[in-house]
Amino acid sequence: MIFEKELRKGNQNMNYKFYNARILTMETQDIIEGELWVQDDRILYVGDGKNVDSVYGKLNLGSIVWDREIDCEGNLLMPGFKDAHTHSGMTLLRSYADDLPLQDWLTKQVFPIEDKMDGEMIYHLTKLAVLEYLTSGITAIFDMYLTPETIAKACVDMGMRCVQTSGLSGQEGFEKSLKEMESYYLKFNHDDPLLSFCIGFHAEYTASKELIKSVAEMARKYQAPVFTHLAETKLEVEGCKGRHGMSPVKLFDSLGLFDYGGGGYHCVYLDDEDMEIFRRRGLSVVTNPGSNTKLASGIAPISDFLKKGINVAIGTDGPASNNCLDMFREMFLVTGLAKLREQDASAVDAWEVLKMATVNGSKAMGLPDTDVLAEGKLADLIMIDLHQPNMQPMNNIPKNLVYSGSKQNVKMTMIQGKILYENGKFADSYDVEEIYRKANEIIGSLR
Amino acid sequence: MIFEKELRKGNQNMNYKFYNARILTMETQDIIEGELWVQDDRILYVGDGKNVDSVYGKLNLGSIVWDREIDCEGNLLMPGFKDAHTHSGMTLLRSYADDLPLQDWLTKQVFPIEDKMDGEMIYHLTKLAVLEYLTSGITAIFDMYLTPETIAKACVDMGMRCVQTSGLSGQEGFEKSLKEMESYYLKFNHDDPLLSFCIGFHAEYTASKELIKSVAEMARKYQAPVFTHLAETKLEVEGCKGRHGMSPVKLFDSLGLFDYGGGGYHCVYLDDEDMEIFRRRGLSVVTNPGSNTKLASGIAPISDFLKKGINVAIGTDGPASNNCLDMFREMFLVTGLAKLREQDASAVDAWEVLKMATVNGSKAMGLPDTDVLAEGKLADLIMIDLHQPNMQPMNNIPKNLVYSGSKQNVKMTMIQGKILYENGKFADSYDVEEIYRKANEIIGSLR
Repeated sequence: MIFEKELRKGNQNMNYKFYNARILTMETQDIIEGELWVQDDRILYVGDGKNVDSVYGKLNLGSIVWDREIDCEGNLLMPGFKDAHTHSGMTLLRSYADDLPLQDWLTKQVFPIEDKMDGEMIYHLTKLAVLEYLTSGITAIFDMYLTPETIAKACVDMGMRCVQTSGLSGQEGFEKSLKEMESYYLKFNHDDPLLSFCIGFHAEYTASKELIKSVAEMARKYQAPVFTHLAETKLEVEGCKGRHGMSPVKLFDSLGLFDYGGGGYHCVYLDDEDMEIFRRRGLSVVTNPGSNTKLASGIAPISDFLKKGINVAIGTDGPASNNCLDMFREMFLVTGLAKLREQDASAVDAWEVLKMATVNGSKAMGLPDTDVLAEGKLADLIMIDLHQPNMQPMNNIPKNLVYSGSKQNVKMTMIQGKILYENGKFADSYDVEEIYRKANEIIGSLR
Repeated sequence: MIFEKELRKGNQNMNYKFYNARILTMETQDIIEGELWVQDDRILYVGDGKNVDSVYGKLNLGSIVWDREIDCEGNLLMPGFKDAHTHSGMTLLRSYADDLPLQDWLTKQVFPIEDKMDGEMIYHLTKLAVLEYLTSGITAIFDMYLTPETIAKACVDMGMRCVQTSGLSGQEGFEKSLKEMESYYLKFNHDDPLLSFCIGFHAEYTASKELIKSVAEMARKYQAPVFTHLAETKLEVEGCKGRHGMSPVKLFDSLGLFDYGGGGYHCVYLDDEDMEIFRRRGLSVVTNPGSNTKLASGIAPISDFLKKGINVAIGTDGPASNNCLDMFREMFLVTGLAKLREQDASAVDAWEVLKMATVNGSKAMGLPDTDVLAEGKLADLIMIDLHQPNMQPMNNIPKNLVYSGSKQNVKMTMIQGKILYENGKFADSYDVEEIYRKANEIIGSLR
């Protein structure tokens, strides 16, 4: 297995000055016209760029040497998007099996191929996903897939911020996997600043009550949140009621799973009592409208979540069920599907959606330093090309982003102070064509 | 009013040889690996590029002089997308009024501004829309807006293929407008090869029975198809039943409106009898899923249309109600919403959607020479960048296009044998920043 040189080796302690920018910090809807300075991995300054001497003085930095001064030409800087639920390695199965009923898709197409995938394959396939995240301005992912070690390696090699969670499952004999999860939890929360790990398991319908109890115990041991697939389909919720006499949310809560927070992916079928548990426990909903649409799962009650003050973040889900990793498509779907569901064109406005894709994602993923653009925050940010016809006229920039934005507007993606994608080109350290070649070779070998 | 020099003046009789291409002709799902030759405004050859001597011989051309030979690097050539329903001039109102109930949106925001718009404004705003169509690989539009003369001028100046139809409306005193429509019909079907004009009117709910009858008469006079907004909302259909005792489709058919074909925009609420009329008359449905979603109008029964063999094309609708002009988003929504509506992940497969966006659009718009890539057809084509992560691995190129494609994949857009957009740059003859400036100035002056 060949690992690329770590990006940071060639790209350490870079200082960037972005000027002539519009800046949407996401603290408020106001657009600042000015400058943003990055020192190493952090934001040093956000402001109008005036009285710079006093800024220098305040920061006590003397004269900073800029490695690059970037003229933003009036384009927009904003926090990168947080993809709060994905299975990156499933790039392999993009367009491999579509337009099939859900059960046929899973049992005849997805599972047989996944059985043959190994860690090295998932390393390469995760790298392919990272390329796509960068084109969509996604600067952090919440990933659940089969081989955490090689997923972590792929993300570090590519410079991607990655919160992993476990896809732990099984009716019996899960103790070994549980220990493994604990070792990942202990390792990946200290290994690299780009990585973290969250306690989790696949879903109620692939777990025994004992497994769920053991996960809850671990959550208590570390006073840690737990995430899992939750109420994705009507069938799942009805199945759980049959097995346990209550909805998955109530089951989990009754077992103490959410005593230290966390939340669920999908959450299409939550009833009022479930939502009340979410509210009371401060849990996050991670909605996945692209996947819920393509797999015909249904439309999540986003308006209700917001009315109850529940934190809603957005995920793409994996590329086998979506099939792309595109936060612009997800943002439009969040509001569009809510409008259809409520039969109300005013449901879930654009600003709420933009918060979901940024600030709320950071909250769900335990990444408070990535939520807004402000002094001291991590430099995980993107530049949006406003000199494109779909961003004109500039009646309302946040609405333009949500209702007419596309990947084509992503002019630059920076993670941890490193520019990984700019003007349609990826970082020099990536061998992009080799990543494509590998992905095609792997699917060829598994067919 | 300043008109740009016509593009064709500087770009006449260009011969292009595209080689090293993948070609999806849309005649079948097969991908040809080979070459595509363009002479002036037509496709001269599509094939594997082998035995070129015999091809030359067959075409009796001697040795063609290529103005440009373009290495496609394995990227995909396919027919351009047909946007079969739009109001280009409404770029003005993009993100001007959103997240409002439909009636407030129309009466308090859209209508008051539209009352103040004039032909010159619509000229500039249409040019802004054309820029966006090009970024999405859209090579022909079916436009209905206020000032056909300046819309035609904008499209010719930009090199855009445009079928216009009339937004004729009014309870009384429509005779003048009707005569005007006839004059446009006679003028724009002979004026310029990029232009055509179709008989039409705004909608049942803004027309008297007399107006509809007069339009039907004109359709009979010219043996011509008619298009109109149709069954967009439940309210509209119920209102029509109240006014006329029958659905809009039945009303129109009873008045002879569809004796020579045509069809409807939106068609969200058609019942079985309406669909039977569509089938029998060979009418086209133009579906507008982005707009129907954002305005909470509902989900059209696309699966039913297909089962009945009705021609379904796709439109973006205008940018005030969508808010972007992006065929990739529309394509995903067509299939995604059908899957949700039918609760069936196998509903409306990707290939059907790709046909709607190309071949079926050409049929609805009366542009048979733009439907597929074949010898003798018009050179309205696009190049899709397959060297992007969202197009990898290449398990299935048509599915990749529909499920994970985005504007970012559009590497080139050619209309009538002219390259108007390539590698993120527009034709040199456009003053792009001036178009943006104008749009912002106009909205500033009308607020």
